[in-house]
Order: sequence, then C-alpha cells, then structure tokens
Amino acid sequence: MQKKIRQQTIKFKNPVYIISTSSTVGPKEGEGPLKDFFDLILEDSLYGEISWEKAESKITKETFARALEKANFSQEDIDYVISGDLLNQNTGSNFAIRDLNIPFFGIFGACSTIGEGLGLGAILIDGGFANNILIGASSHFCASEKQFRFPLELGTQRPPSSTWTVTGQGSVILSDKKNQDKNKKLPCVTAITPGKIIDLGIKDANNMGAAMAPAAFDVIYSHLSDLNISPDYYDLIVTGDLGKIGHDLVVKMFGEKNIDMTRNYNDCGLLIFDIEKQKIGSGGSGCACSAVTFAGYLYKRLKDGVLNKILFVPTGALMSQLSSQQGESIPGIAYAVAIENHD
Amino acid sequence: MQKKIRQQTIKFKNPVYIISTSSTVGPKEGEGPLKDFFDLILEDSLYGEISWEKAESKITKETFARALEKANFSQEDIDYVISGDLLNQNTGSNFAIRDLNIPFFGIFGACSTIGEGLGLGAILIDGGFANNILIGASSHFCASEKQFRFPLELGTQRPPSSTWTVTGQGSVILSDKKNQDKNKKLPCVTAITPGKIIDLGIKDANNMGAAMAPAAFDVIYSHLSDLNISPDYYDLIVTGDLGKIGHDLVVKMFGEKNIDMTRNYNDCGLLIFDIEKQKIGSGGSGCACSAVTFAGYLYKRLKDGVLNKILFVPTGALMSQLSSQQGESIPGIAYAVAIENHD
Repeated sequence: MQKKIRQQTIKFKNPVYIISTSSTVGPKEGEGPLKDFFDLILEDSLYGEISWEKAESKITKETFARALEKANFSQEDIDYVISGDLLNQNTGSNFAIRDLNIPFFGIFGACSTIGEGLGLGAILIDGGFANNILIGASSHFCASEKQFRFPLELGTQRPPSSTWTVTGQGSVILSDKKNQDKNKKLPCVTAITPGKIIDLGIKDANNMGAAMAPAAFDVIYSHLSDLNISPDYYDLIVTGDLGKIGHDLVVKMFGEKNIDMTRNYNDCGLLIFDIEKQKIGSGGSGCACSAVTFAGYLYKRLKDGVLNKILFVPTGALMSQLSSQQGESIPGIAYAVAIENHD
Repeated sequence: MQKKIRQQTIKFKNPVYIISTSSTVGPKEGEGPLKDFFDLILEDSLYGEISWEKAESKITKETFARALEKANFSQEDIDYVISGDLLNQNTGSNFAIRDLNIPFFGIFGACSTIGEGLGLGAILIDGGFANNILIGASSHFCASEKQFRFPLELGTQRPPSSTWTVTGQGSVILSDKKNQDKNKKLPCVTAITPGKIIDLGIKDANNMGAAMAPAAFDVIYSHLSDLNISPDYYDLIVTGDLGKIGHDLVVKMFGEKNIDMTRNYNDCGLLIFDIEKQKIGSGGSGCACSAVTFAGYLYKRLKDGVLNKILFVPTGALMSQLSSQQGESIPGIAYAVAIENHD
C-alpha cells in the first residue's frame, strides 16, 4: 500500500471573491512607482498621533473602515476579522480592532501575514463557516527600525543589502458572493499553499531577502508540484518582500531545477520602490509591502484585466530583536496564494 | 425583511477528535495541585539551554514530539501546525517549528492562544481541509517577566493582584478520525466562539485578570445565547488565566444578568496553583496556563469520564510592554471552545 503523500496545497471548491480592498501608505511609498494605485498617501508618518505605534493603529483602523465603505458594508456584515503586524504582541492590529465589534483571529507571519490571512480567510469562507471576512496587515518604517534595528535618531548607516520597511496597511474583504459588479469577473482566492519554516542559517538582519528566499522557493515549488502546473500558468508570480538579492536567489534556485522564472516573476519590494532613485537598498519589506502592493496595485490590475491569474507569495522573516542578539539565525516562511479572475 | 443576526459561534458538523495531548511544565507548576497530570516536570527553567527563550523553544519542540508519539504519529501524518506564544514575534514557536517539516500557521492571541488554535484547527478539519492538525501554546515565567515587567534580578515586589506566568507548553492533536481507542468515547471540539477584543480601560499590567474578565464574560454570554443553552449544559466552564480577581468579576457580571455561575465555573489559573500555599498572588497566567491545564488535567478528566462536556475559555491580554509605557489600556480577548465526549 502506498503511503499517503501529504498535499500542502488547499484548492478551494467555491469561488472566494475578493470584493473590496483598501490601502494606505506613508510619504516615501507615495513617491514610488505605484503611487497612483493607493487610496491614501500620508503626508507624514506620525499621522497626527504622538507615537509611530499609535499612528500604525490609526492607519489600520481607517484603512479597514475604507475597505468596508468601498464594499458598501457596515461592521455588522463582517463575520470575523483576521489581522497581524510586526509590532511586539501585534499591538498595531489589536489597538485598531478593539474599536470594531467583530470577533477576531490574531495571526503572526511576520511580513507574510497578509498571505496567511488570505489563506485562513478563504478557508473560513469556502468551508461555509463565514460569509464575509475582513483581513489586514500593517507595518511602519519608524516603529520597525526602532524595534528591530536602531533608533532612527542615531542615523545609523544602512548596508546596501538592507530592505526598507513599508509604512502602511492593506485591507481585503473576502466573500462567498459578489455584492457589487455582479456581471463582471472578480479576483478570487482559488488555492493556498501554507509554507514550512525554513532556516538555512542566515544571521544578518540586514539581509532578510537572502534569509527568506529558500522559504519562498520551497512554497512556490510545492504549489506548482501539488497542482501539477508550470510557472507560466500564472501571468505573474510575485513574492512579498525579498528585494533584489532575494528575488535573484529565487530565480537561481529554480534555475537549478531547470525551471525558468525569468519571464513572469517579480517581487513586491521591487515594485513599490524605485530602488535606485529612492536609495532604498535592496527593496521594500514589512507586512505592508505585500499587503499594500496587493490591495493597491495587483488587485486593480486584476480587476481591469491586465492580469488574470497571479500567484501571490508574501514572505516573512521570523526572528525577533532578541533572537538576533542571542546569535540565532533567521527562519523564513512564505504563503502561496493563487488569485484568479472568476465569474 | 429581518436583518441577518450575525452568529459568532461556529458549531461543527463532524466530530473533531482530540486524539492526543502532551504537557510540559516548570518546577513551580510541578509543585502545584495538578502535578500528577503533567507528562514532564522540569527540574529547572533553563532546561540545559543558555537562555530562557531557547529553553521555551526546546520545551515546545519536545512537547510536540511527545504528542506525536502518544498518537503513534510521525511528522508526515500532520497536515498543518498551529502555534503561538508570548515572546516578541512568536519566537518560542518559530524556533521550535523550524525543525519540523510541516506547513505552519502562526497565531497570536496572547494567553488565549490555545483557544484560538483549537478553533482554527477544528475549522480546518471540519471543513475537510486537513486530516490531522498539531496545535500548541507556550509561555515561560522568566522570559515573560523580563519582557513585560522587570528583570528577575531586580527582585521587584509583586502586588497581590498580579498573576504568575506559567512555564510550560501544551500540545494537542486534532483529527477527523480516532486512530486509537476506537471503541471508546473521545473528547471532541464541537463548537467555537471566537471573541471580540474588549477594552474597558484597565491600565494596570499587574491586574490582568480584571482587564480580561469583560472579554471572557462577553464570549461566554455570546456562546450560551447563540446555542440557546444555559451554563449548566456544561459540567465545567473554565476560563484561561483570570485568577481570583478576574474569576470573581465574571461571576459578578453574570449575576447582573441573573445567571448563576457559582456552581460549575472555575479558572485554569486557580486550578494549576495553590495560590495561598505557593504565594502566587491572584493565580496562574500565560499561554501555557490554559494550554497545560487542558492538555494535562482537563483532557484526562474528560477521557476518564469524570467530565463529559466542558466549555474551555482561554483568555488573553493584548498589550505589549511598549503600549503600557505609552499609557495605553489593556485590551482583552477570549475564545470559547466547547469540548464534549463523543463516540
């Protein structure tokens, strides 16, 4: 008797519609190539608050509200909220969601959080456990630098391999039915491949792209194998925040398997910033990097038909400041989310 | 037309069997009233490691392994792992799970984590998305004190309202079928009520029981209303880590609704320690408090038939050290998990 081969990928039976998204970004993201796709560009990163952490919660709260408004929904229409961020104990999300009267699942996937959220949200809907789910992920450059690296006031020089944490929040509403544009195709979550934690021993918190690349490779490879498809099934395969170094490593790892990823593979961290002109280092990073690139840019490109099928692969580095201080390496994770236009 | 009343509670269609549990605790828990129910009592909290954080990951890794062994499972039998803890960026879990070759969902519900995990795990199984799920939650007294309050070396005096973070990890395996004891009844997750974040303005990190009690009350009340049952439907209703102060507040809040909770309601934080003899303050707390009390004590009491139906309600305080320093209040959350013996 053959031993059951465990499938990592969940393919959904019913269309899980993405009926609304919303995005807010900081000033630097508002000067980047995707600036015309975001709903709100902040003029300053404190956003009228007395701390960056409070600003992050305010951004989350307001971006959630805008996603609801765009879906013509009130809070009562949402069954569950799923959200996470980079701040210790997920306070970016917790302090935003305490004002919503909606049951909550808190998640932590570092910068892969929006991928984990889309996966769990689609599971709740496809399984018939919910009709509408609100999902979000946020990060804040200043709060992250302070928490993970150095106080900004030190003016520490950043090595070229370092990535730039995106300030912002991306919100997504998943639903079992279309509530607007009923005659149009809508982007749907069609499959999710949750990743394994992979740690090949990278210890440099200024080179997170390299630390996360093996997890991205592994989950994309598993996704393609499970569904028996090749990369060109998708119009675009897009990782979360590997930046230039991590992106090139993924291309190289697939090359070693004789799979060509040079044609339709990009990274949100390379889309959101012009890394040369904006002097960004290796690219954008943070939970918001993939969340706002999806909620702002990719979702609109799907809706207007420029893209039809994408594999969205948010990536996360699962270290803490303390684990780095204790000499630990950086474990990586990624979630592969298939999103396709559907009637 | 009547507006749809949103139901917070998910009632599972199929039995979601709890086929195995495992628990590890620290020395202080090993001197408490539940000492005979735990699989492993550590002789010291460093457990041969050079830091408390590394010790927490080692405890998690080994307790997971023991849960697999007790189910007669290997890693390959598990579809997904769900885990979380109190350490910044969930490193207690991440650094344990990187050595498992199993796709992972990281969650953060503070001390309510095991409840959130049991809920999501049961959703994955009842929805047909997985056959077997491994779930865990951990905490460590020394690592928590250092992270949230004061370095232990300071010998800071603790007020009587403070709770004592449990050192340990509780693991649970959920499955769509019994793999042992096939003719016996087994505890099953039959329903889950995910909580809303509730913040009534308590700011004292040494009185978390009071901060979490309103969330516990709210989710238990919603659970009973959604299913149209009274508290005496259950043999035991047991919150996670409210301690004496929070427990008494919950009884009082139900009293104001003319619902008697004095007969079958207890708290894991009061079960795990003898608060007088062990000089614990208000009771036990931390992710491990409810996780090991369930995995060690409650699961065995269900299996031997002393209990048949329980409502297990892990509770969490969603603050960070920084949010307290910035003068924020403490938002609370709770998950109500119905567990009943089933053929």
